[in-house]
Amino acid sequence: MTQKILVLPGDGIGPEITAQASRILAACQARGLDVEVEEALVGGSAYDAHGEPLPAETLEKAKAARAILLGAVGGPKWDKLEDLSKRPEKGLLGLRKNLGLFGNLRPAITYPQLAEASSLKPELVAGLDIMIVRELTGGIYFGQPRGIEVRNGERVGFNTYVYSESEIERIGRVAFEMAQKRGKKLCSVDKANVLEVTILWREVMERLAPEYPDVELSHMYVDNAAMQLVRAPKQFDVMVTGNMFGDILSDAAAMLTGSIGMLPSASLNETGQGMYEPCHGSAPDIAGKGIANPLATILSVAMMLRYSLDEPALAQRIEDAVGKVLDDGLRTADIASEGTRTVSTAEMGDAVLAAF
Amino acid sequence: MTQKILVLPGDGIGPEITAQASRILAACQARGLDVEVEEALVGGSAYDAHGEPLPAETLEKAKAARAILLGAVGGPKWDKLEDLSKRPEKGLLGLRKNLGLFGNLRPAITYPQLAEASSLKPELVAGLDIMIVRELTGGIYFGQPRGIEVRNGERVGFNTYVYSESEIERIGRVAFEMAQKRGKKLCSVDKANVLEVTILWREVMERLAPEYPDVELSHMYVDNAAMQLVRAPKQFDVMVTGNMFGDILSDAAAMLTGSIGMLPSASLNETGQGMYEPCHGSAPDIAGKGIANPLATILSVAMMLRYSLDEPALAQRIEDAVGKVLDDGLRTADIASEGTRTVSTAEMGDAVLAAF
Ligand SMILES: CC(C)[C@H](C(=O)O)[C@@H](O)C(=O)O
Ligand SMILES: CC(C)[C@H](C(=O)O)[C@@H](O)C(=O)O
Repeated sequence: MTQKILVLPGDGIGPEITAQASRILAACQARGLDVEVEEALVGGSAYDAHGEPLPAETLEKAKAARAILLGAVGGPKWDKLEDLSKRPEKGLLGLRKNLGLFGNLRPAITYPQLAEASSLKPELVAGLDIMIVRELTGGIYFGQPRGIEVRNGERVGFNTYVYSESEIERIGRVAFEMAQKRGKKLCSVDKANVLEVTILWREVMERLAPEYPDVELSHMYVDNAAMQLVRAPKQFDVMVTGNMFGDILSDAAAMLTGSIGMLPSASLNETGQGMYEPCHGSAPDIAGKGIANPLATILSVAMMLRYSLDEPALAQRIEDAVGKVLDDGLRTADIASEGTRTVSTAEMGDAVLAAF
Repeated sequence: MTQKILVLPGDGIGPEITAQASRILAACQARGLDVEVEEALVGGSAYDAHGEPLPAETLEKAKAARAILLGAVGGPKWDKLEDLSKRPEKGLLGLRKNLGLFGNLRPAITYPQLAEASSLKPELVAGLDIMIVRELTGGIYFGQPRGIEVRNGERVGFNTYVYSESEIERIGRVAFEMAQKRGKKLCSVDKANVLEVTILWREVMERLAPEYPDVELSHMYVDNAAMQLVRAPKQFDVMVTGNMFGDILSDAAAMLTGSIGMLPSASLNETGQGMYEPCHGSAPDIAGKGIANPLATILSVAMMLRYSLDEPALAQRIEDAVGKVLDDGLRTADIASEGTRTVSTAEMGDAVLAAF
């Protein structure tokens, strides 16, 4: 049965990088991948066209798709929108919530060819390979009540950090299973010395542990985790945490690999339906210049093939092609270094296609 | 008038490091500093002795003191305490709250003698000097409602992230004034694209800005701030943020200086009453071995002299003495490197005293 893929270019460099990734998708179709590819608007570009960051038509198409490839959303153009519900980010959050994409996988890998690009000393990041499992449809991002209101004569802003046992268990299982397939070490990150919601988090992780006897579970406070990522990132295999802590730690981890232009991500629901996107943002400062790095988005296609389309061989071909292009010394400006050749977004796409 | 100083050794390495810092305090008294020094229990050691991490007697002494010197609290011995209100951390949180110590100053400085100890490349951290201003008595640490309860047949954990305009304004002014005394750049960190409470935060910072026309105010999302600290920390001068984000970012920033054993902190209320403590924790793994680094605690005494006791000259003497000892090549084990001499906690205290 033909499966549907929805491409959402989004804002900033989004259209440029998804254009290259779409070429790879087309090449997969040419090799027999049975998918139908559509496009739709999301984020600031959807707001500009339809007054909504997540138009009903886009959401409908997303629900019908087995997998979504997203570029990036947001930019200074929409930062001043008074109504938070119209901001580009709400398009992304709406997709996550409506599709139930609770399981966010964010690999932080150092590409051997790029270890020098890290701000950390090379020996600390060479060979780094962490998988951060972030809960994506709960926590303080979606908790009620929330808002700004007048209390005792002054305005007060408030949000609610909330997790139920079943939400914690669900993401915990994703993380334990991931650890089983990898280095068998799982570090759960919380702030159980201060926040009740994370006391429950820790308790549920402890309760699950005996079901995964081959996985070594540890716990770390979030402030210490931020320190340990800087100090000795290779101590980690799989990390699991809530939505807000995961947002912060996964970005820090991605940056310290030095390979941030290279890192894909997956957001999955229980049926394997998923949204795939680069870890980096919409980079409005370089949008439209043809210099953005398309590799994270191309590698997001590989993740899509592996997690939603059950095509690990094709996924591997893409990853190998990217490796070869790096070996050949091709770099977009963000990852350029002495002795390499700086290429444009489209030239990088050409090269990966040629190596595919 | 003789002012009171309360020393709270706390847990783990706390007693060892405060012992050395107390010797410096005594040396200041010998040079004319008119203070009376007392000691009391807090944290796990207070729980062991009195069943409470913050005994009434300790709180009373704390209220009567102009300044408090705290070692560190916590350790695995008390991590299993079911009742969160008995945990060592509650001693610390109770002091902050009861004394209204809302303004937490956390410098992240790279000591030139220690730049090599950073996990970042030396050129990225040499000369680094950031001041993180963290709100310390509000936000999600203290928000109500909070707890764990049964809803729809399962347990749910919840906490409340809340700030009022006046709380934000108060810490904002501390940060703007700090920026005026330093590099005149203030970066306010929030998550205003997702959390209403931080939309209000950003608004209040914007409202204050015209009163400090010499300070350049910028805003950054917390995930990006975590990345930028790793990528290029020297872009920052003063950063201001809420309690939870401040906890995470200040620890990451401290670690990336490579000087974490050296970093003091101050927590102040509106009257200048303050609590002073090292940025690092209670390090239970090395407690009692006489090898802990007392310098962050000694430098906390310097901060105390500057911010609560109005004795900048004495503060400078302590800082100069510490600089001299480092120049002489003395190091505790945590900051040791080739070509330096490793000394014990007490020997380090001796050396600073001799140089004072
Ligand atoms: C754009 C923003 C809402 C989003 C988030 O905070 O989740 C982004 O930072 C991410 O991590 O995907
Ligand atoms: C011990 C803990 C409660 C505390 C905090 O989270 O504030 C500590 O991490 C700190 O930063 O002083």
